[in-house]
Amino acid sequence: MLKKIDPSRYTLTKKEYKTQIDTLETKFEELQRKIIDLQIPVIIAFEGWSASGKGACISKIVYPLDPRCFNVYTMGKIPEDVAMRPFLWNYWQKIPSKGRMTIFDKSWHRASLPEQQSKRPLTTDETNGFYYDINAFERQLSDDGVLIIKFFLHISKNEQRRRFDELLENPDTKWRVDRRDINQNKNYETHLKYFDDMIRGSDFDFSRWSIIESDDLNYAAVKIYNIIINKIEEKIRGDNYKSRERPSGQNELNKLNQTEKSVTRVKLSEVNPDKNIAQAEYKERLAHYQKKLSELGYKLYTKRRPVVIVYEGWDAAGKGGNIKRLTQRLDPRSYEVIPVAAPSKEELAHHYLWRFWKAVPKDGHFGIFDRSWYGRVLVERVENLCSETEWRRAYREINDMEKHLYNHGAIIFKFWLHIDQNEQLRRFQNRETDPLKQYKITEEDWRNREKWEAYEKAAGEMLFLTGTNYSPWTVIESNNKKYARIKTLKILVETLEERLK
Amino acid sequence: MLKKIDPSRYTLTKKEYKTQIDTLETKFEELQRKIIDLQIPVIIAFEGWSASGKGACISKIVYPLDPRCFNVYTMGKIPEDVAMRPFLWNYWQKIPSKGRMTIFDKSWHRASLPEQQSKRPLTTDETNGFYYDINAFERQLSDDGVLIIKFFLHISKNEQRRRFDELLENPDTKWRVDRRDINQNKNYETHLKYFDDMIRGSDFDFSRWSIIESDDLNYAAVKIYNIIINKIEEKIRGDNYKSRERPSGQNELNKLNQTEKSVTRVKLSEVNPDKNIAQAEYKERLAHYQKKLSELGYKLYTKRRPVVIVYEGWDAAGKGGNIKRLTQRLDPRSYEVIPVAAPSKEELAHHYLWRFWKAVPKDGHFGIFDRSWYGRVLVERVENLCSETEWRRAYREINDMEKHLYNHGAIIFKFWLHIDQNEQLRRFQNRETDPLKQYKITEEDWRNREKWEAYEKAAGEMLFLTGTNYSPWTVIESNNKKYARIKTLKILVETLEERLK
Repeated sequence: MLKKIDPSRYTLTKKEYKTQIDTLETKFEELQRKIIDLQIPVIIAFEGWSASGKGACISKIVYPLDPRCFNVYTMGKIPEDVAMRPFLWNYWQKIPSKGRMTIFDKSWHRASLPEQQSKRPLTTDETNGFYYDINAFERQLSDDGVLIIKFFLHISKNEQRRRFDELLENPDTKWRVDRRDINQNKNYETHLKYFDDMIRGSDFDFSRWSIIESDDLNYAAVKIYNIIINKIEEKIRGDNYKSRERPSGQNELNKLNQTEKSVTRVKLSEVNPDKNIAQAEYKERLAHYQKKLSELGYKLYTKRRPVVIVYEGWDAAGKGGNIKRLTQRLDPRSYEVIPVAAPSKEELAHHYLWRFWKAVPKDGHFGIFDRSWYGRVLVERVENLCSETEWRRAYREINDMEKHLYNHGAIIFKFWLHIDQNEQLRRFQNRETDPLKQYKITEEDWRNREKWEAYEKAAGEMLFLTGTNYSPWTVIESNNKKYARIKTLKILVETLEERLK
Repeated sequence: MLKKIDPSRYTLTKKEYKTQIDTLETKFEELQRKIIDLQIPVIIAFEGWSASGKGACISKIVYPLDPRCFNVYTMGKIPEDVAMRPFLWNYWQKIPSKGRMTIFDKSWHRASLPEQQSKRPLTTDETNGFYYDINAFERQLSDDGVLIIKFFLHISKNEQRRRFDELLENPDTKWRVDRRDINQNKNYETHLKYFDDMIRGSDFDFSRWSIIESDDLNYAAVKIYNIIINKIEEKIRGDNYKSRERPSGQNELNKLNQTEKSVTRVKLSEVNPDKNIAQAEYKERLAHYQKKLSELGYKLYTKRRPVVIVYEGWDAAGKGGNIKRLTQRLDPRSYEVIPVAAPSKEELAHHYLWRFWKAVPKDGHFGIFDRSWYGRVLVERVENLCSETEWRRAYREINDMEKHLYNHGAIIFKFWLHIDQNEQLRRFQNRETDPLKQYKITEEDWRNREKWEAYEKAAGEMLFLTGTNYSPWTVIESNNKKYARIKTLKILVETLEERLK
């Protein structure tokens, strides 16, 4: 791609530039107002050679905009706490809410470049995993209505050299050129290949790259402006990827069934939640597994592996007590429990996965979710809080998100705490009569209970479609809370021992 | 304080410990439920010698708690992006919302220790500033209903040595002892003095230190438990600082008038907002100041000074357009505009300054607030969204917050965009008839307008009580928008030139 383009051929006279830019500025200012009206989130990502003028181009395009409605982020260096999470985590924090614009000076794509990999070059598998992850990321956002515009600023070897020299001559700008920049220029051909691979690997239907010949910055600015304006107008007309793409929900499901190797094939209705454990055995095994888990916690910390634990299940299935037994002997600095309630207004203005990404644990730590992103295919599905297309799409999105966590090294556990209807009734009634527990029971719990069958269906499909080998579900028989706690701990301990060997 | 205590004298037999701890655990578990019911936020800070058992004590006290209702943060190392902000910034992010508990393993107090100061020891002025800042921080939280409990874990020189030896002997724990730890033990007496100073400097009415003799960890755990339980019970009974302290609002105000050297003594009603500028002059000076400001932006960046700019003023006074002219030629990576609307539910569950602390700019950057924390003494006061005690207290709290920013090196600008009632009416009517501007005018604007006098009074008192020499107000005559923009830019440019000399 890049190789065929000679960036030095494209130029504009000052006068040509000036007449064009005034019109474009006015146009873009108008469009920003429409973006706000229509609540369209926009991401503009700038990639390119060192000294290709990313900063200057960003300055030009934000000039006509209302500065209260966009954010610009420079993403070069990776701080230590960012490196301790999946590489897309930092970008998820920064996606725009509806009607806002986020501009990235350097982007997630560069994680594929050899210079960004601290330790060693990626293996083929890792490279494939990497492109899979960014494909999923960009698709998820596009499907949610985000307009993604990607620019690669391309300059020739001579022009780059010229710009470095200019910067180096001036004592005020000298610091902006470092050894890596010089190296890029010296090995221009090698880096051209890297960039080419990066662009080829991440040029998707829903987020195509635009190559900007930037030897002449005026030419570049005009081309960038035109592309942004076209893409926004296309989006407003509904004439783009998102609007064209209307996957039949059922197709999506079938496709998934064929391609994903699910390991959990449990039918909830066939699970008997009535398993027991004697009190003496409970006490002894609880102490045993808690001690083991605490030791494994230190091992995880030294090996820098993060653990993600998801709790889902029926109301009153005993999630709280189960989580408490899990954390009780862990180092309290090593875990966080994330209680998940209905989304806030701000959370609703973002992709539904946004709020969960914020809580992803860093390396060496446990993130324990008391309810989770599975709300999308459970309560949001049953209560019609999202469209059918949306919750059907979610199976794939969730699998992709968990795969990204897995690719980063996370060990994932998902527990469905299972009780039967009679047991739930007993617990509800008990909560109503016990003054210490009354706060735990609300009208909503009774309403949910009436929809038992709808939830059972949703849970069944969820277990089936999102039980993968990298992120399996375990159904925990929970009519007896003590049995449930021991089973959960046992699975955690045995799996971690296996995986940390 | 510390010097008089011999931590090795305090011990407990295993049996004594066991009988006490069971009761305390049950008690604490009950109290946590009450904390949630009563929506009390709790901060527990642990300080102490290396290897004094902070981690072990935290593990013990969280044991009986519901892990969904607390967070534990380890605050040892200071990451780069944290170091680029006032030292309390990172703690403000982590304060508990109502009904939650935050436990700090190491705390803001240690910023006073010589070993934490990267460059050079603090001057006396800086030390005073430091204690002033943490006094203000703890007072602000206490006044807002946060219960603050502070522990210092004290061990003897011999016991510390013994623990280091034990850790060093085991290859699995060896890494936990570093050169600084050994150094602390060698120079135990010197560090004793540092810690003593720290405790003496930060032992406030509303947040007293408790010294915990920790040579015997069982003894320490029991003592910590007892103190926590007592303090929470005291808080619930209303028998503590916050409940005793009932400052008469007027007193607070008078005190302030006497002690704070305010520099702005402007009476709004005496300001004539009708100043003009010719179009040609406007264009010429706009270009001039924007260019200057852009150059100063780079200077700020290399000098690592942050700039905080606050915009307040009448509805339709032209804040948006003014901000746009300010940012237009700045490097878009160097600033963020923070539009401030009504607080969200989560924000309401925290101290009102919490959401503004999140947005404090890092060194070398501009943070531009389109409305700000002054909402407390403007709209919240006029509309009775907070109590009189609360908004009267806010003058001092805001002055303290800005002083902390200033102590960190921030350059602060506060602009009141001033128009008269007739001009506002003209602009409102204009917005109603212009379809492109209709979105800018709501019923609320008309309602606010009816309260002009109340707002004028509030704004007047605000300008008077929060105009300090480290953070002065400037009233910008804004009947003519162009004049207003030039005046704002001029003040920015001239002040920054002066301050960056």
